[in-house]
Amino acid sequence: MTAQRSGCPINLTLETLGDRWSLIVIRDIMFGNRRHFRELHGASDEGIASNILADRLKRLVEADLLSRAEDPSHKQKAIYSLTEKAIQLVPLLVQMGAWGRRHLPVSREMSVRQELLEEGGPALWDAFMDELRTLHLGVPAKGPSVLARLRQAYEEALAEKG
Amino acid sequence: MTAQRSGCPINLTLETLGDRWSLIVIRDIMFGNRRHFRELHGASDEGIASNILADRLKRLVEADLLSRAEDPSHKQKAIYSLTEKAIQLVPLLVQMGAWGRRHLPVSREMSVRQELLEEGGPALWDAFMDELRTLHLGVPAKGPSVLARLRQAYEEALAEKG
Repeated sequence: MTAQRSGCPINLTLETLGDRWSLIVIRDIMFGNRRHFRELHGASDEGIASNILADRLKRLVEADLLSRAEDPSHKQKAIYSLTEKAIQLVPLLVQMGAWGRRHLPVSREMSVRQELLEEGGPALWDAFMDELRTLHLGVPAKGPSVLARLRQAYEEALAEKG
Repeated sequence: MTAQRSGCPINLTLETLGDRWSLIVIRDIMFGNRRHFRELHGASDEGIASNILADRLKRLVEADLLSRAEDPSHKQKAIYSLTEKAIQLVPLLVQMGAWGRRHLPVSREMSVRQELLEEGGPALWDAFMDELRTLHLGVPAKGPSVLARLRQAYEEALAEKG
């Protein structure tokens, strides 16, 4: 983040998303449906520190990428939801995953979901975004669950790993 | 950058690309064909500091995203080229631009090239990547220049701005 501004869409996107932790948090909410602080903290392989997690959640709410509400089922707990703006990051995250799968030492179980999304193309991304709108924005469900399909592929890859 | 590692393709991509300056440098080389330190420094609207530019160029060469060679036409000057790995960032940068155009206060002249690329879809991205391979890797040209088309749209938008 910086005081310098330009009207370039790539630059503004990079400024808005901030450092890598913001996208790691969005990834965990989006693909892992982790909605509470405690689920987000400690669960991911990257081991985000609690002060960084707290800061990034605050920034993401300020940037209108997450919304925060009291969870009616858990007193004293906040639940985080993706906004429409964050849901529309799906194609960007798919391309990030596609590039990583091709050029970096990814693990099988962590890349199988990205592989499915990449192969499914824009039609599957749209279906996944619709499902996220159901989960996070309360929009009625339109079709079969993409997340369930991604989760199944992940669990199968994990089982194969042994 | 961190010592923690996970095999997640999104995380590894974020770790490899580092902070936003790395992608700003790649953007300027890719879309502006700025190949020398002096062209990269000061030319962009974001005003990258020379020490940050020097550091990011070094890191990008180490990460195999750029290659560095002495420029035969300018003694004492290095010329930077995109590698195949960096050229394959085109779809990711297009999605970054697409998201920025939709959700952030972009300027017309800085977003018209992203708009063309987004509308052109994967076929245009492939043609653009082929042109980058010609410019940066010495692969023979395959078709008409995409960069020239992008540059023309940019200059028209700049002229309209007045």
